[in-house]
Amino acid sequence: MKNAIILLSGGLDSTTTCAVARRDGYRLHALSFDYGQRHRFELEAARNVAQFFQVADHRIFPLDLSVFGGSALTTDLDVPKDQTLDRPNTIPITYVPARNTIFLAIALAWAEVLPATDLFIGVNALDYSGYPDCRGEFIDAFQTMANRATRLGVEQSEPIRIHTPLLKLTKGDIIRLGTDLGVNYSLTHSCYDPAADGRSCGHCDACQLRLRGFREAGLVDPLPYVDRP
Amino acid sequence: MKNAIILLSGGLDSTTTCAVARRDGYRLHALSFDYGQRHRFELEAARNVAQFFQVADHRIFPLDLSVFGGSALTTDLDVPKDQTLDRPNTIPITYVPARNTIFLAIALAWAEVLPATDLFIGVNALDYSGYPDCRGEFIDAFQTMANRATRLGVEQSEPIRIHTPLLKLTKGDIIRLGTDLGVNYSLTHSCYDPAADGRSCGHCDACQLRLRGFREAGLVDPLPYVDRP
Repeated sequence: MKNAIILLSGGLDSTTTCAVARRDGYRLHALSFDYGQRHRFELEAARNVAQFFQVADHRIFPLDLSVFGGSALTTDLDVPKDQTLDRPNTIPITYVPARNTIFLAIALAWAEVLPATDLFIGVNALDYSGYPDCRGEFIDAFQTMANRATRLGVEQSEPIRIHTPLLKLTKGDIIRLGTDLGVNYSLTHSCYDPAADGRSCGHCDACQLRLRGFREAGLVDPLPYVDRP
Repeated sequence: MKNAIILLSGGLDSTTTCAVARRDGYRLHALSFDYGQRHRFELEAARNVAQFFQVADHRIFPLDLSVFGGSALTTDLDVPKDQTLDRPNTIPITYVPARNTIFLAIALAWAEVLPATDLFIGVNALDYSGYPDCRGEFIDAFQTMANRATRLGVEQSEPIRIHTPLLKLTKGDIIRLGTDLGVNYSLTHSCYDPAADGRSCGHCDACQLRLRGFREAGLVDPLPYVDRP
């Protein structure tokens, strides 16, 4: 059984990605980051999802990105609400600088040690292309770099593969895929600005995308909302 | 004056790189990592060097790579002594998995926020090619990836440049260059296994390379050694 590392935020996309890696027969190693998120519900979701999939190992890596500032998710900027999701060619304020680069780089360190040549990340370019580090051309370049950066890459012939099973799926497709693979979406968390009791706001970009996805999939999101639009 | 970020370990190479960036007219932002090194002398050297160059800003990023294990520099493995430095095609036990990838990825986050498009790293492929992430082909691939990963890269046309002024220099060349640029090498630290009082061991790979470099440059290393071979 081959080892795989899955970047697991506890959101809908990374959870579905975990289900795909399990379906494909990998031994699952989940990696989450404690990066100064505004709230703890995301890490709690990651723990619950890791347990649900009975992963071989789940590590939570402390990473204090807030020392550089620059994003609504790690600083005190307001999370935008009820914005249209159709904003081509603009990068949202919720973009965390170089986040996926850093997450994949740290996954690569674990990959060297395990070893594991297969890394899974739930990036999705179709529904929400505002983040530069969610695009296929970024992933391709990261994979090339990773094979030159590592012992694994030097000693074998370009063995490292960054898997992006969701890259070209809509949110609706993703939810249908995960549902087919037995994902329990009530364990996941997406909201950028949840209430103190953990309920989702229903109005941030993440909530809007998630709810639209469930509608597209013809399903009802099992999560509780403060206000379900 | 353009901003530059310099990865500063406090060693001979990163200190010389800092001197080159200053010579080239950049406003200096030094970035060091507290990554579970065996000893604190390295960070102390980084602080002293940053002060020497009167950098605009010096950040020390906490990064606990020891959670994955896998290197003599972050775990309890013994540091090898008196090994021949001519070991082509072998990766030393002191290799820290994906270290430069992680360091540059985190520098990229700071670059987005500052902003800065110029990153300096003191990698050196000629004298010691054992680390895969010290080679030019790694740096080239990282630069390509960085320009696809970031807002800076998307909004301009491949603006991010990873500068490696030492890439093709011998240790002797590096020391001559730094000496010409006014570097005070007594502030730097290289030894993997210093004595409790901070003196260098004289026998680990880092000490051997450093001492050979000073000999090549026709200079005397100002650092105190437990045993100067």
